[in-house]
Amino acid sequence: MVFVPQDAPMAKVEATRNYGANVEMQGARFEDALVAAQGYVEETGATFVHPFEDQAVIAGQGTLGLELADQLPDLETVVVPIGGGGLAAGISLALNAVRPGVRVVGVQAAGCLPGGSGFTIADGIAVKEPGELTMGILEDTLEARVSVSDEEISTAIVLVLERVKLVVEGAGAVGVAALREGRIPGDGPVAIVLSGGNIDATLLISVMRHGLTSASRYLVVRTRVPDRPGELIKLLDLVAQERVNVLSVEHHREGMAISIAETEVELTLGMRDEEHCKSLLEAMRRWGYQVERLR
Amino acid sequence: MVFVPQDAPMAKVEATRNYGANVEMQGARFEDALVAAQGYVEETGATFVHPFEDQAVIAGQGTLGLELADQLPDLETVVVPIGGGGLAAGISLALNAVRPGVRVVGVQAAGCLPGGSGFTIADGIAVKEPGELTMGILEDTLEARVSVSDEEISTAIVLVLERVKLVVEGAGAVGVAALREGRIPGDGPVAIVLSGGNIDATLLISVMRHGLTSASRYLVVRTRVPDRPGELIKLLDLVAQERVNVLSVEHHREGMAISIAETEVELTLGMRDEEHCKSLLEAMRRWGYQVERLR
Repeated sequence: MVFVPQDAPMAKVEATRNYGANVEMQGARFEDALVAAQGYVEETGATFVHPFEDQAVIAGQGTLGLELADQLPDLETVVVPIGGGGLAAGISLALNAVRPGVRVVGVQAAGCLPGGSGFTIADGIAVKEPGELTMGILEDTLEARVSVSDEEISTAIVLVLERVKLVVEGAGAVGVAALREGRIPGDGPVAIVLSGGNIDATLLISVMRHGLTSASRYLVVRTRVPDRPGELIKLLDLVAQERVNVLSVEHHREGMAISIAETEVELTLGMRDEEHCKSLLEAMRRWGYQVERLR
Repeated sequence: MVFVPQDAPMAKVEATRNYGANVEMQGARFEDALVAAQGYVEETGATFVHPFEDQAVIAGQGTLGLELADQLPDLETVVVPIGGGGLAAGISLALNAVRPGVRVVGVQAAGCLPGGSGFTIADGIAVKEPGELTMGILEDTLEARVSVSDEEISTAIVLVLERVKLVVEGAGAVGVAALREGRIPGDGPVAIVLSGGNIDATLLISVMRHGLTSASRYLVVRTRVPDRPGELIKLLDLVAQERVNVLSVEHHREGMAISIAETEVELTLGMRDEEHCKSLLEAMRRWGYQVERLR
């Protein structure tokens, strides 16, 4: 029986169910799901397994540190996500024991920290603070603790997706985000733990769309066409000649300070890059359209 | 200097440029880009490297077959994408030599075959037919050639993304599609070559959205609300209580056979699963809304 918050990603819930678990979705946050689990334990006498305040769980996650030590002889720094801190505690304990020279840096989602919004796309580490047990270990073993914003996490998700061809969830991308933003101290070879990959496809789509907009792969233009049959086709035809993919067409006739014989059209277009955007805007102006770039 | 068709995925073009190549985007299809490359060779005296009709290219791709033989002692079947056939020819030649008992099955995109639409999302293998050299090898060495549709390819892309956490392009997913559809003969352990991962993020978003709709992760409902201030908020509030994420709201006031005092609203909603869809539709009816499920 596994307890998760009500808004846990369906990707994670389904994957857990596929491994044979009963999944209960209860409460808004991690802490609420924990209370629900404790209630269930009291009622039924089941054995409680805490997700991080548990020596056996920490030791199990520590095997990841042993594998890193074993497979990467040149390693100087390991970057690990911190939510409850179990994974980070296990890895840093293990590395401190077998490779004491390796720096372990923990990364938290800024949204969850004091002063944050309370929300983060890194739901896998959306815990108010590490536990007592894990925090005690982390204070002794970590080189540093740093944090990253949701914007930085989302850029990292898109980078890993496009260049490494791997799907990582927000919690899995925090290490890449911290490295990209220059927050990892020291130099030499770095290993980043990407844990895990349970991101909801709907969230992944939003993150990708955000990333594409920043990279000028979407263009939103507003223009006007005469409100007569055939005029929209004429515009779309010209756009197609520039090898531009039309993603949506919206007409606005209400609340606009334009002539009654015209209609405002907002086009969302799939572009190759900023150069392609500029050349299309130029072409549209050459064809006689007034254009306004919205994004 | 690398020649690719005009509509080649920007992900592939950018990756190629990042490796230091000059990329020329010419012509609508693979065959046109080939002609442009040959023209460039005639003009400049450059050395022509054909992407598949070349023994050295085939031999190079054959090393993948040697690695498979080396790393997978239990292997009985290998599934390989076929476009021009270079990758498949190299792998099947190598495996025939070192592991003659292993079956090699080639998979083509149905859209490119005679009788197909001429278009496929598997642009990496969008070649009208394998070359003479590669076809000669494939006829001698392949166990079977099978084909898959774009719909099957797109389901495979989403499956690999969600369950294997890997980004593959259409050409990379054809083997998984063929296996899922039961088109791979024989039994025992199967290895599928996922080559490659250069899918444009915009196409990946469309493919994911398509997959999500099939899995009831999107719901589109049409309903009516009184055309008065506060009525839309009331509806959205009820929807939020069911823990449903609103992706878009569209108002239709034109061309509808509804009362002048009402407005039609179309909601696109992010759902957990089919059960969640049904329970929301029931709740909306209970609240007194007429609802029509569009998707």
